[in-house]
Amino acid sequence: MSEFTEEEKRGFYKAIYSRRDVRSHFTSKSIKNEILSKILNAAHHAPSVGFSQPWNFILIKNNLTKKKIKESFEIEKVRSSQLIEEPKRSKYLSFKLEGILESPVNLCVTYDPSKFGPFVIGRSSIPEAGLYSVCCAIQNLWLAARTEGIGVGWVSILSNDTLKDVLELPEYVVPIAYLCLGYVDEFAEKPDLEKAGWLHRLDLKDVVFFEKWKEKENSDWKEIQEMIKTNLNYA
Amino acid sequence: MSEFTEEEKRGFYKAIYSRRDVRSHFTSKSIKNEILSKILNAAHHAPSVGFSQPWNFILIKNNLTKKKIKESFEIEKVRSSQLIEEPKRSKYLSFKLEGILESPVNLCVTYDPSKFGPFVIGRSSIPEAGLYSVCCAIQNLWLAARTEGIGVGWVSILSNDTLKDVLELPEYVVPIAYLCLGYVDEFAEKPDLEKAGWLHRLDLKDVVFFEKWKEKENSDWKEIQEMIKTNLNYA
Repeated sequence: MSEFTEEEKRGFYKAIYSRRDVRSHFTSKSIKNEILSKILNAAHHAPSVGFSQPWNFILIKNNLTKKKIKESFEIEKVRSSQLIEEPKRSKYLSFKLEGILESPVNLCVTYDPSKFGPFVIGRSSIPEAGLYSVCCAIQNLWLAARTEGIGVGWVSILSNDTLKDVLELPEYVVPIAYLCLGYVDEFAEKPDLEKAGWLHRLDLKDVVFFEKWKEKENSDWKEIQEMIKTNLNYA
Repeated sequence: MSEFTEEEKRGFYKAIYSRRDVRSHFTSKSIKNEILSKILNAAHHAPSVGFSQPWNFILIKNNLTKKKIKESFEIEKVRSSQLIEEPKRSKYLSFKLEGILESPVNLCVTYDPSKFGPFVIGRSSIPEAGLYSVCCAIQNLWLAARTEGIGVGWVSILSNDTLKDVLELPEYVVPIAYLCLGYVDEFAEKPDLEKAGWLHRLDLKDVVFFEKWKEKENSDWKEIQEMIKTNLNYA
């Protein structure tokens, strides 16, 4: 189980670089239970602070639930559009940003801080670490879905209060993600917002610092500084 | 690029199931710049809300910095131990929970909410979505490191104030993770805290609900309910 062959690595990196946030192109093909279980199991094997496994996965296909969430999306989309001026506003409003009704399965991933609590190793100094674990599980799920040919879209334009209400979450449970899952007829080559010219992908050299904040030149790291200046092209 | 072969899937799932939080077994072998760049690039290709790419990666090998972080760890470990009673306290204190000094590279991953801001698509209704993106990047990095034979340990027993101070982070930047990276002479078969009997792994059926919170029986999901009751064994 220890060393990875070149082929195995290639499979892994293919998932990393071809994964997309999917809002359109969903097909009506249903997801087999075996595949759905496999994806959920990958999520459940994410790292968690103090091994607390604080996640839950709520599978949704009820149409009434989906419609309520879609409604919340519409309200929040308009509300947030008021934060920007024309011509950006119209451009923003023209984007397709969710596939709630078109995707066969919706999935809410939640954080339950009470699990194995109150004392969880590694969560006393940084309580947010519990939330972070749930996000790691979501990324596992997202990548696993990609290897199975299933697209995932994360809808964060919605009201968490509505979500809690509709899914009957207790007060202490935090909804972290609302995801749309389904087979797609294509995975875009680049993120939608990059293609649309909304934002560009940063160069790797612009997100890496050495030894402290904003330090871009450091004699102990000379070689890697040079290396990341030439854009790496694995995608 | 679309379909994954069985071999490619195997490579991907191997990363998912053999990844560990590593606190010991680090060797002194240094990480080649090419490999480090590759891992960072995988992190940089995580999903991010509104394509905001709000992460930064601060690479650390300065010994003085490491020592200051280790000191903070020691203080916080003792402080948190006071939250529990014997015999749990002694057991907790006996655990090896970090490899700050032994690992050749430390890495702080931060969240910068000002990037491409203030308006980021998908971050108005749920501002925490920015933090969640950074966590997805961390999980990409963790898995990529595993495929390269490199262990990663996340140290969350430390003071973020100390961390901000030592790495000279501006007030508005949030440190999300402090990671220790290095080659290891083994990846444990199970998480350390599971092996030590501190906590057990939950069954998949205990973390999956149907249509709403706590709903474990739902006629629309009968088949998958049965399926996840038999424990899936991919690990």
